[in-house]
Amino acid sequence: MTVKEVFQEITPSDFFYRNRDIAGFTNPARALYSTVRELIENSLDACELSMIPPEIYVRISNKMDAQENFYEIRIEDNGPGVPPEVIPSAFGQILFGSKYKLRQTRGTFGLGGKMALLYGQITTNGKTLVISSTGGNEIYEYQLMIDIKNNKPIILEKKVYPNKRKWHGTIIEFTTEADYPRAASKIIEYLKQTAIVVPYANITFIDPKGKLYKFIRVTNKMPKPPEEAKLHPHGVDVETLRRLIETTKTKTLYDFIKTHFQRVGDATANNFLKFAGIDLKKNPKQLSQEDIVKLANALKNFEEFLPPDASCLSPIGEELLKIGIKKELNPEFVTVYQRKPSAYSGFPFIVEVGIAYGGGIPKTGKIELYRFANKIPLLFDEASDVSWKVINNLIDWHRYKIPQDAPIAIFVHICSTKVPYKTVGKEFIADRPEVEREILNAVREVARRLSLYLSKKRSIERERKRYGVFSKYLPKIALFATKLSEKKKEPEIKYLLKKAIKIEEEFWDSEEEERKSSGES
Amino acid sequence: MTVKEVFQEITPSDFFYRNRDIAGFTNPARALYSTVRELIENSLDACELSMIPPEIYVRISNKMDAQENFYEIRIEDNGPGVPPEVIPSAFGQILFGSKYKLRQTRGTFGLGGKMALLYGQITTNGKTLVISSTGGNEIYEYQLMIDIKNNKPIILEKKVYPNKRKWHGTIIEFTTEADYPRAASKIIEYLKQTAIVVPYANITFIDPKGKLYKFIRVTNKMPKPPEEAKLHPHGVDVETLRRLIETTKTKTLYDFIKTHFQRVGDATANNFLKFAGIDLKKNPKQLSQEDIVKLANALKNFEEFLPPDASCLSPIGEELLKIGIKKELNPEFVTVYQRKPSAYSGFPFIVEVGIAYGGGIPKTGKIELYRFANKIPLLFDEASDVSWKVINNLIDWHRYKIPQDAPIAIFVHICSTKVPYKTVGKEFIADRPEVEREILNAVREVARRLSLYLSKKRSIERERKRYGVFSKYLPKIALFATKLSEKKKEPEIKYLLKKAIKIEEEFWDSEEEERKSSGES
Repeated sequence: MTVKEVFQEITPSDFFYRNRDIAGFTNPARALYSTVRELIENSLDACELSMIPPEIYVRISNKMDAQENFYEIRIEDNGPGVPPEVIPSAFGQILFGSKYKLRQTRGTFGLGGKMALLYGQITTNGKTLVISSTGGNEIYEYQLMIDIKNNKPIILEKKVYPNKRKWHGTIIEFTTEADYPRAASKIIEYLKQTAIVVPYANITFIDPKGKLYKFIRVTNKMPKPPEEAKLHPHGVDVETLRRLIETTKTKTLYDFIKTHFQRVGDATANNFLKFAGIDLKKNPKQLSQEDIVKLANALKNFEEFLPPDASCLSPIGEELLKIGIKKELNPEFVTVYQRKPSAYSGFPFIVEVGIAYGGGIPKTGKIELYRFANKIPLLFDEASDVSWKVINNLIDWHRYKIPQDAPIAIFVHICSTKVPYKTVGKEFIADRPEVEREILNAVREVARRLSLYLSKKRSIERERKRYGVFSKYLPKIALFATKLSEKKKEPEIKYLLKKAIKIEEEFWDSEEEERKSSGES
Repeated sequence: MTVKEVFQEITPSDFFYRNRDIAGFTNPARALYSTVRELIENSLDACELSMIPPEIYVRISNKMDAQENFYEIRIEDNGPGVPPEVIPSAFGQILFGSKYKLRQTRGTFGLGGKMALLYGQITTNGKTLVISSTGGNEIYEYQLMIDIKNNKPIILEKKVYPNKRKWHGTIIEFTTEADYPRAASKIIEYLKQTAIVVPYANITFIDPKGKLYKFIRVTNKMPKPPEEAKLHPHGVDVETLRRLIETTKTKTLYDFIKTHFQRVGDATANNFLKFAGIDLKKNPKQLSQEDIVKLANALKNFEEFLPPDASCLSPIGEELLKIGIKKELNPEFVTVYQRKPSAYSGFPFIVEVGIAYGGGIPKTGKIELYRFANKIPLLFDEASDVSWKVINNLIDWHRYKIPQDAPIAIFVHICSTKVPYKTVGKEFIADRPEVEREILNAVREVARRLSLYLSKKRSIERERKRYGVFSKYLPKIALFATKLSEKKKEPEIKYLLKKAIKIEEEFWDSEEEERKSSGES
């Protein structure tokens, strides 16, 4: 018995429909979590690019007339809106989007939002309502479905309304199969952690029982938006080079290198072309196939290029991250440290790490790890993440005299034009050596600061005890000494006691200075 | 400062080119590992479907005239060959292949092999040579490249040769950037583990230094090939239903249900349509949108459907797995246990577990875990795999009196029409409750058997000591007793000594019986 193989072609929408598990749409609970997450991330990305402090409203409700596992999802944002002509494809076609650029965004694959709508469609046969305006004279409303087999949007209805108030933003509404009870805790945790890294957003969430969760903006300060970056030579392969050559308007290799790559000036261009052994006056369109390979390899291996430009990145910043942590967790002590930019394979990245102790940090018997990538909280598969490895295998906590069962939380944020995720579901970050090293150094620094705090705290406690003893016995000693010396007036002891308190006051001011004075480790 | 979003469409090949990390093509070392693995898996899949005992030859060589990080990859198999008209698309177009069926195959996404060629192309600008014949009168030779932007094959050259010896098989040769020194150990480990689960294959590997590795077939017995399965009703969604309705030739719902789904007979069809509340004489093409949703939900929730048919699956089998383990690891003790078929979300699966002890099993201080899915060894991200969880967190080894630092290896194989991988790179399996339960029960059973073996071994050792004491003192006691009783002839002691040995002999035969008598746990 043998089996004949039959060959066929499938579209990307069909591929991701069949393999929705790998994008995080495994079952009704997980799918709901991914749905909320992907839609919020798209809204936040859009708002931040336009420097609009985000106002996001999410509602999950049971539809009265439908099955109990069918939920209606509604999300509204005040972002820049989607241009009417691209609405159908932006919401109804897989591998169509605005994320295919070298720019730091939460979305990476241009998939998640559409997967949410696709999942809704394949479980409930429902359509998607999209209402959007870019703030012009019209508001557009579409009813859409996805032709999954052919990867095309189906427009069921289109309406145009006047936009008198110049509203801009996007509203999406659709029905999906879900298991809210099982997804609830992860969704709330996701919102809470989002509020930590986006303290400049208002997020409102209404759960199926009508319970309202509000995460309120505590600052109007926003990080500068991420910018699109040119390629760094170290991130180049033959295919990229071929595409650049196809579209370039430059006439010489010298101009080609300077125009299309980051941080290449006259001197670098000259030295590089000498290194590559190619004539700098050559027209890039006339390079042979072998020249292209040679050029690609030279670009990868020339070591005098400046490191990738990180000015296109948008980290949270020490101040905002600290505000966020204080806002949501109210710890006794918190410190945040931003590393200098680094790079892997031509992609710049920045690591920011915070550590919080005591107060609202729950004592769970182990160090709580909060992971973020391009301002997305990562909640699944913690043990596969590079940060988990750093904290549990690489850091020697004894050295810092930090007990691992103390109420401690560590926050690791990495932002990059390309976060090295290992899955389409964006659950965890690969242990690229460059990334691991940066996280390790950052955690060491904040651990050192916490260690200092704790040791000061311990000495303060000793002082307090000492002060307790003083204040109890000093008056008696004074009285006794007065009697013994047969003087009438007891000595002034208030001054002595004050001196003991002073140490404590100094200490409570020192954390801020600590932060300012500490540089690179 | 705000940034305008630009929308664009990309092809699947462009998508996977940009995100090759998620398919296991992260860096030159990992990419080489993935390349070897994906190509071997395609060859094995093809051979097994045609019941051809696989002969696979892989060579990795440094190209003399090229850069030192450029390697030439050549793989040859004796499979059924690829029909000439589909060769260009099968090797030059992403999301084109023969794996988009409900059938147990190593390949799942129809991606890996093409990603290997694509990676070679983007790093070396090289083309791919494909030579194949289905055993007819001609052998076809193609020189191909991939138009990544448009996801189309580019045919550079095509030749036809006469096939006098009626050869069938496929040969692929191309150049790729690689880091062999860093990938070597994983590649060898992969081949070794493949030899365990495919003991009926000859695999030859020649490394860049010309060193030959041969994994020789030890049996001609092959498992029956996997078959394509009909859908199980529990695995159905609205989209699937819609597609079936589009193409069905049945005229009534009654026939529709019986024709397109597994294991639905007259009685089940009748009961189901009563449950769903739909008229069984209705023409499926006339179902309203709401009826389709109703039908899909009823299919998912009706509990009287028979469980998914596992006869389409191709497990390794207890005998072959045992042969494979003995062949590659030569342990002192080995036992293998195949669970009865089970199912998750309408997909059947079978778990097979082996345990091996002592002999060639290295003592590493922990239990070694060998993971396989559809006969693929899984070597990365062990700690994220459901089997790791079972062995390290769920099994109480103390209960079995098995010391965890003993030289023990556990082999877990799951085969399914849809393995619940969590990544496109096929590195680890999700902890679906049904899968976890099956693995847990299987590991318990083999642990019980090993426990029995070890306890018998311990008692044998006690017996041996006892026998040692016997054989030393019994003659003396006999002599003494003879003298004491003033008899002339000493009593026959050989019979007594024999009795002590007997226990040992019984024991060495018991393992086989053990295997036969043990049923479901």
